[in-house]
Amino acid sequence: MNPKKTFASDNYASVYPEIMEAMVHCNSGHAAAYGADVYTQAAEKKLQEHFGSDSDVYFVLNGTGANVVAIKTLTRSHHAVICAQSAHLQVDECGALENNIGCKLIPIATDNGKITVANIADYLGDLGDQHRVQPRVVSITQASEYGTVYTSTEIRDIASLVHRQGMHLHMDGARLANAAASLGCSLAEASLAAGVDVLSFGGTKNGMMYGEAVIFANKKLSADAKYIRKQATQLAAKMRFIAVQFLALLSDDLWRKNAQRANQMAQLLMQELRLLSAVKITQKVQANGVFVIMPKEIIPVLQQQFPFYVWDEKKSEVRLMCSYDTTEQDVVRFVAAMQAVLPNAYAY
Amino acid sequence: MNPKKTFASDNYASVYPEIMEAMVHCNSGHAAAYGADVYTQAAEKKLQEHFGSDSDVYFVLNGTGANVVAIKTLTRSHHAVICAQSAHLQVDECGALENNIGCKLIPIATDNGKITVANIADYLGDLGDQHRVQPRVVSITQASEYGTVYTSTEIRDIASLVHRQGMHLHMDGARLANAAASLGCSLAEASLAAGVDVLSFGGTKNGMMYGEAVIFANKKLSADAKYIRKQATQLAAKMRFIAVQFLALLSDDLWRKNAQRANQMAQLLMQELRLLSAVKITQKVQANGVFVIMPKEIIPVLQQQFPFYVWDEKKSEVRLMCSYDTTEQDVVRFVAAMQAVLPNAYAY
Amino acid sequence: MNPKKTFASDNYASVYPEIMEAMVHCNSGHAAAYGADVYTQAAEKKLQEHFGSDSDVYFVLNGTGANVVAIKTLTRSHHAVICAQSAHLQVDECGALENNIGCKLIPIATDNGKITVANIADYLGDLGDQHRVQPRVVSITQASEYGTVYTSTEIRDIASLVHRQGMHLHMDGARLANAAASLGCSLAEASLAAGVDVLSFGGTKNGMMYGEAVIFANKKLSADAKYIRKQATQLAAKMRFIAVQFLALLSDDLWRKNAQRANQMAQLLMQELRLLSAVKITQKVQANGVFVIMPKEIIPVLQQQFPFYVWDEKKSEVRLMCSYDTTEQDVVRFVAAMQAVLPNAYAY
Amino acid sequence: MNPKKTFASDNYASVYPEIMEAMVHCNSGHAAAYGADVYTQAAEKKLQEHFGSDSDVYFVLNGTGANVVAIKTLTRSHHAVICAQSAHLQVDECGALENNIGCKLIPIATDNGKITVANIADYLGDLGDQHRVQPRVVSITQASEYGTVYTSTEIRDIASLVHRQGMHLHMDGARLANAAASLGCSLAEASLAAGVDVLSFGGTKNGMMYGEAVIFANKKLSADAKYIRKQATQLAAKMRFIAVQFLALLSDDLWRKNAQRANQMAQLLMQELRLLSAVKITQKVQANGVFVIMPKEIIPVLQQQFPFYVWDEKKSEVRLMCSYDTTEQDVVRFVAAMQAVLPNAYAY
Repeated sequence: MNPKKTFASDNYASVYPEIMEAMVHCNSGHAAAYGADVYTQAAEKKLQEHFGSDSDVYFVLNGTGANVVAIKTLTRSHHAVICAQSAHLQVDECGALENNIGCKLIPIATDNGKITVANIADYLGDLGDQHRVQPRVVSITQASEYGTVYTSTEIRDIASLVHRQGMHLHMDGARLANAAASLGCSLAEASLAAGVDVLSFGGTKNGMMYGEAVIFANKKLSADAKYIRKQATQLAAKMRFIAVQFLALLSDDLWRKNAQRANQMAQLLMQELRLLSAVKITQKVQANGVFVIMPKEIIPVLQQQFPFYVWDEKKSEVRLMCSYDTTEQDVVRFVAAMQAVLPNAYAY
Repeated sequence: MNPKKTFASDNYASVYPEIMEAMVHCNSGHAAAYGADVYTQAAEKKLQEHFGSDSDVYFVLNGTGANVVAIKTLTRSHHAVICAQSAHLQVDECGALENNIGCKLIPIATDNGKITVANIADYLGDLGDQHRVQPRVVSITQASEYGTVYTSTEIRDIASLVHRQGMHLHMDGARLANAAASLGCSLAEASLAAGVDVLSFGGTKNGMMYGEAVIFANKKLSADAKYIRKQATQLAAKMRFIAVQFLALLSDDLWRKNAQRANQMAQLLMQELRLLSAVKITQKVQANGVFVIMPKEIIPVLQQQFPFYVWDEKKSEVRLMCSYDTTEQDVVRFVAAMQAVLPNAYAY
Repeated sequence: MNPKKTFASDNYASVYPEIMEAMVHCNSGHAAAYGADVYTQAAEKKLQEHFGSDSDVYFVLNGTGANVVAIKTLTRSHHAVICAQSAHLQVDECGALENNIGCKLIPIATDNGKITVANIADYLGDLGDQHRVQPRVVSITQASEYGTVYTSTEIRDIASLVHRQGMHLHMDGARLANAAASLGCSLAEASLAAGVDVLSFGGTKNGMMYGEAVIFANKKLSADAKYIRKQATQLAAKMRFIAVQFLALLSDDLWRKNAQRANQMAQLLMQELRLLSAVKITQKVQANGVFVIMPKEIIPVLQQQFPFYVWDEKKSEVRLMCSYDTTEQDVVRFVAAMQAVLPNAYAY
Repeated sequence: MNPKKTFASDNYASVYPEIMEAMVHCNSGHAAAYGADVYTQAAEKKLQEHFGSDSDVYFVLNGTGANVVAIKTLTRSHHAVICAQSAHLQVDECGALENNIGCKLIPIATDNGKITVANIADYLGDLGDQHRVQPRVVSITQASEYGTVYTSTEIRDIASLVHRQGMHLHMDGARLANAAASLGCSLAEASLAAGVDVLSFGGTKNGMMYGEAVIFANKKLSADAKYIRKQATQLAAKMRFIAVQFLALLSDDLWRKNAQRANQMAQLLMQELRLLSAVKITQKVQANGVFVIMPKEIIPVLQQQFPFYVWDEKKSEVRLMCSYDTTEQDVVRFVAAMQAVLPNAYAY
């Protein structure tokens, strides 16, 4: 067992105590399987309170599954999905979209993980050409894989272009809570209310055990979703245990407290690292991740004490993720450990 | 909330207390995601103790996912999967195999949910014909969807034919524990040790919250499994919470105790129902399900008190499932409720 | 080279001379590729004359391709396709539909290759159930794989049920010409005009070299067809050579003359065989195929002289196909050869 | 009908007379369908004479189909295919590979349509990572979509890297004849003999009507090819008509004569255009295509007289393709037409 804190990923953290309590609490007697239970109904209602009464909610098992269900519902195999080159669904889902939908992804290189209206416009020239896949969905990640955040205005501008073309806007919101906390707005304002058509809303990186929600802006969009969820292997039997996690996370602003804590620790970490001349912060720190170029030789030494991931081997860039349970002490210890292994000259 | 007992499905039950405790107990500190944690290692080892040291274990999220990962690893799109017409993967997975693999299923009509060597032999005539899909996997369900159980000898005979043809044998073991308890043998003897190449081993129907294990007989068979699991959206992030459930289930014979309890209640239910002249038991009761033809008009009345599913509308056949938490009192009450709504003449 | 006549398949025949001449005739100069040429425009217009001015035509390369393009345009992966157990797309296309669409086929056992309204109704019970594939297309083969023909009334009845359920009716018309010649009606009356939504219209079995046409009843149905055709590898570059074949086949009633000739030879063959006590005609002869049970031992001897296929090994049933180039002499010789190898007692 | 010459594509040309004659010549009597005929056997043998006696040949219907059959035979859905960003299979096949295989393509930006050993090496870092698709096939186009040609040495270097990694090398040889003619070597030396594992060998762009050949370096690689060809809708019924085209094309060096003629006309065109100060040749002319930047305003005027395609709208770059039937007069006329519409100052 390795209970020590890491900066590897926000999904290394354990389950937030109140969420675990909710799971224990609902664990008695029988409940109808596959979502036909009262907990699931209550959780759907709770999500509609946050995301709008027209929205339509489908609980799924994990983030890759959420992206597949969300996007497959709105595409056919001759369509294409435009996304950032760094998007989780392009890089880290082992081709799940391609295999489940049969479609092509069109990755766009970005500096900061965020794609722009101009980027998208570049790929709309082949609409109507039978030889070419037809862009149908644009997928953006909020907060992005680089820890940057789309403002509501940026989302609205993208949505506006996308909708003019008869296309749909998907948001991978594995860290939507971190983005909304960063923007100081509601979950809806950072997603559906700004024009997103379908959202993968994640909880696992913000204190849940498992489970995500696919949220469509309205029921016209989601007509096929229940079949696609089942076919994509994403329908849970004992659904109540996903439902109560969302009920807990979305009550009493727990989602925001957890996300804020992680974001604040990333800010603190960034501020401390900025003081070290040997390292370079490479991205704006807007959510809970800090991207840093550091001397190659100290990386393995440091990883032994505080596991984290190398993001770009060639650039010697690493990713440091904070989670809801990261403490100031964790940050201080990490920076101290870093100073200890840095050549003297570089430590301040 | 509806805490009352049902005979609807063994996945209506809550999580067995010791399993829930194990989940609570491991919930502290950080653990590497995606299975690179000590709990997962321990659980893999525990499964190897039960299923053989050559076996190779992949934890997944649910039963449909387990079947997809197990079978896809061993097939290509021009292959076919032979199974019973009643198989869960033929009937109740919304075409998950077809969509994930692109293959065809060849369903075989049976009386009791079990396919035979002779059934399979009927479908091997087209091997080598380029116009025809090529049977590659035979899938059997243990215990079957009709609550019947394959003996080790029956499995060995099927495996022998299958292997002679260069094919593979898959077992959907969503209720393997019930089958092994019924046969009075080990989990392995009711599956891998009898010649099964890859097993979907379920826990959710035997007291777990979520999570299944795909177990290959050896590592040659499983070479692609880790990629296929991820692509099929079946890789859990916080894997420790699946691992500790299996650790609990497979310790101190908990799996057998739970399964036995469910099986015994099915026996009791069958014995009680046999006394009623208005109902007819349609299948051997070898695991935890009882299949019964009953007067059409009493079904909805009875379902109001004790939810259960109609299996065959036309025949007025229903399925009554017992689970680890079914009590003798539950059975007695159900039968009493039935007698109360049956026309007098038929109650004994 | 083996120029001798066979009763193996109508696609063993060569290309009808007038069709070959049309191909030679259009072979000069440049023509725009992929269907943007004047021949293709003319052929589309010719097909609309036959099938209705609202119809929308897509030329493809072969029959399996036609079925894939036709059905994929109208389905998604969670849908199911209901067809006869004997349907070419179920039996003889190596799972092309499953792999291209990801869907499930629901095969229905029939005596004569034709499915009925009652058959279909049996499979509509699960509409709306998220665990089950959703029937969306019914596919019928005209003439059927058993050489039987659907009347316009039978098609209308099926179409009526199918459309009431919001589903679509596909016809595999690889031998539509033989069916229409048999019914004495137009091509449209035997297909689209009777309620078919999308037709795979074949020419290869009626004197063409290659090429089929997918014909949708209207353009609302075909919105995605051009992309699906290309993605399914069914878009020909030098399209003019498919187009002129259809122009020839559909001019001066050539399609009917060729089909009638084949049908008449099947009638003659049936009448001659009926006189032999050792053989049994197993299906009504309504198109160009004759299904016959004959003594097992004479089959290989006879096949040496006149190649044909065994249809059902167990029943010793063979299929004898006539084509546009079968002559009375071919039939007479075949029957004589048969008598020569039959034990004396059975020859009359 | 538009018999006028174009510079649009080599598939606008008609069928070479000797090839058409071969088709007419074989058009008598019956021949076994699906490749079991003597013409197909002879053509397979002829291809083995050109490509090596170990090679294994599968005739298919078109180029997109050839690429699907070739690559699908060697990949599974969790694999990735590395190719140039400009590759036909990335850009112009409407996602056929993604839909048929379920895999991801990894496009590499190039200046000239040719990828290098260094390019490929950049994408091999994730081998073994379960979250990432696994590169399995590298696909190169010979001649490339930019009219450039890989030398045998360049192919050997790529093959060497690819094979060291346990991967396979595919060549899209839609214009292999043009490349071999350009290199002055045999078809094999420009493909299989240099290390290619599977080749899509095209004839349609070199005087054939339809039909391509998928050629595997050996039978170990092609074990599943016949099923995959059928499932991918690429098995022709009247195969003899594809076979005799290849027999004609590969006899008496017809393939080389046709390709050389097209290549020479491209050289002539390039030399003439080089003299015009208003246009800029953007690629080496090594096969039968010439890439030219020209004043935007003259493009539509010129296209009216001699159809051709704009390659890059933004750069005002066009593609001029020569084919086996392009004449010196065609080239002269085209250049004269260009001078006529160019502002005076730019015409020489």
